[in-house]
Amino acid sequence: MKDVDADARAAATERLDRLTKPQGALGRLEELAVWAAGVQGQCPPLPFDAVSVVVVAGDHGIARSGTSAYPPEVTAQMVANMITGGAAVNVLAHRCRAGVSVIDAAVDSDYAGLPVPPELPDRRIRRASGSIDHEDAMSEPELLAALELGDTLAEERREAGSDLVIVGDMGIGNTTPAAALIAGLTDRDPVAVTGRGTGIDDGTWMRKVTAVRDALWRTRDDADPDTLLRRAGGADLAVMCGLLLGCARRGLPVLLDGVVVTAAALVAERMEPGAVQWWAAGHRSAEPAHGIALSELGLTPVLTLSMRLGEGSGALTALPVVQSAIALLAEMATFDSAGVSQSVERP
Amino acid sequence: MKDVDADARAAATERLDRLTKPQGALGRLEELAVWAAGVQGQCPPLPFDAVSVVVVAGDHGIARSGTSAYPPEVTAQMVANMITGGAAVNVLAHRCRAGVSVIDAAVDSDYAGLPVPPELPDRRIRRASGSIDHEDAMSEPELLAALELGDTLAEERREAGSDLVIVGDMGIGNTTPAAALIAGLTDRDPVAVTGRGTGIDDGTWMRKVTAVRDALWRTRDDADPDTLLRRAGGADLAVMCGLLLGCARRGLPVLLDGVVVTAAALVAERMEPGAVQWWAAGHRSAEPAHGIALSELGLTPVLTLSMRLGEGSGALTALPVVQSAIALLAEMATFDSAGVSQSVERP
Repeated sequence: MKDVDADARAAATERLDRLTKPQGALGRLEELAVWAAGVQGQCPPLPFDAVSVVVVAGDHGIARSGTSAYPPEVTAQMVANMITGGAAVNVLAHRCRAGVSVIDAAVDSDYAGLPVPPELPDRRIRRASGSIDHEDAMSEPELLAALELGDTLAEERREAGSDLVIVGDMGIGNTTPAAALIAGLTDRDPVAVTGRGTGIDDGTWMRKVTAVRDALWRTRDDADPDTLLRRAGGADLAVMCGLLLGCARRGLPVLLDGVVVTAAALVAERMEPGAVQWWAAGHRSAEPAHGIALSELGLTPVLTLSMRLGEGSGALTALPVVQSAIALLAEMATFDSAGVSQSVERP
Repeated sequence: MKDVDADARAAATERLDRLTKPQGALGRLEELAVWAAGVQGQCPPLPFDAVSVVVVAGDHGIARSGTSAYPPEVTAQMVANMITGGAAVNVLAHRCRAGVSVIDAAVDSDYAGLPVPPELPDRRIRRASGSIDHEDAMSEPELLAALELGDTLAEERREAGSDLVIVGDMGIGNTTPAAALIAGLTDRDPVAVTGRGTGIDDGTWMRKVTAVRDALWRTRDDADPDTLLRRAGGADLAVMCGLLLGCARRGLPVLLDGVVVTAAALVAERMEPGAVQWWAAGHRSAEPAHGIALSELGLTPVLTLSMRLGEGSGALTALPVVQSAIALLAEMATFDSAGVSQSVERP
């Protein structure tokens, strides 16, 4: 995988130590500023001003077994809500002047009576992914098509001049395959990765744990990330995986969002190691698998606000913090220019 | 102390549960939105659009004993840097369209050769606060003058139409009295509250612990917060305390910054219980006393980014997150308006 610009990172680190503040006093903001310099290949980096949010939507067969607090038809309803501008992602993207695209990867709906453009399902890989407790999420050709769609989405962003991509998710039941993928790739027990998703009760949580366990049992001999993604993931997660890799291949940085996108990122990093250099983690959600995946990727989230909504909402909430980090690196005075004394060595 | 608007808080809580998201899925953002509704007395709350940053600067006699990594003259130099716009607070305030005022409460400088307005020292309470290891930080009349100056600053913000105040600090050595005040008010040991400040080495840290210990010994019989503030605090901390109380009295909300401002807030809350309702915590810094004081105040910080700069920088980094919380509450569609199904009860 293509590397970020080590010289720009070194220049950012050196510049940070000349700014009128104690060394390291901006904490995590300094790391974010260095990351921005590296992915942009310049120091100081510019503010991200063409941010593209891509929400990848898909249904999951497992949701029919009762692993979510919401009925499956909510996926299509929320897709329509995003298209008409009423969802959290729209409000936050508007604040950040970011564009929002919704991609129907595997929604199980004809959108009858819903205000969506008729061409929305044209790129769909399949109608809902398979129920991973007893069948594969998708076929081999579907996996390849999903990865290719993701790569195409990255190419479209590059052509449109995007300078940062945020990947979001929407799909009732999608935290179940996310938990299964993260457990499968990190050898965790189903109870350690399974969270409350949209806010499920104890009975639903037990069904969800059982589904994750069954998916892990079915895929116990699948060592490679592609196969695990195909059998225990979902078409929407495969599109995200292709998109994340496509961005990294093109040097387009990504701000990661919740547990679903981060599960796709973990698969992607296993498929093409080094891609993670192009990503930063917007937040850590309330889902236990999210922290596990971020830790495995070596990423420290900007925010930890107990959010658990998906859609790109956590990354969009974190974006202004990243922009502040960039502004500080670019605009603060240096000790020399401001005539401020440096620290003293004391005996 | 005046209370925030309970009806507006209740309306915000109720509205949040009608928005197109699972209940509680916005995590801490929901609490911030409810706080904004309560302090503004309306639901939905408006974005804060007249934010005033007040940086209170002061020197500390204790810094002459070698408790900081920087020489005391840096206080005046950094005041000048803030006035000419090169400090972190200026960069961040510009991004948030906030105004910045610098108040010289106790700077020990004539500003010779520094580009500051000649009237800057006119409101000064004294030249540096006393060295709290062996003398009082200030006299009784000075304490009263400092608290009154703080109240006047709050009144000036109210008259100017500010809708949110951020209090920042600047002063070499100021984390030493902050640690002493927090230890004194929470019965903590000096080693538990004393941090690395601007980045001190082990020898300096030991001198700082000793200074905190000596200040606590001198004030061991002082039970009331005013006396502790006068004897183990500083004139700058007293101005902050007056400003925080003045804002609360006038119903002007405050976003708290680092350990120094939070130490002043803890004193203020002990002086007039209930004032804390008007404050939110922008961040938790790397200073151990900061977390102790926030916990004692019952405040959860928006950000935890290992920042340790002061100046209002943490609060200004957190401000866009608060604004996002407000926008979500105000602008998201409801389940009814968007035609989205609510969660289902499962057997």
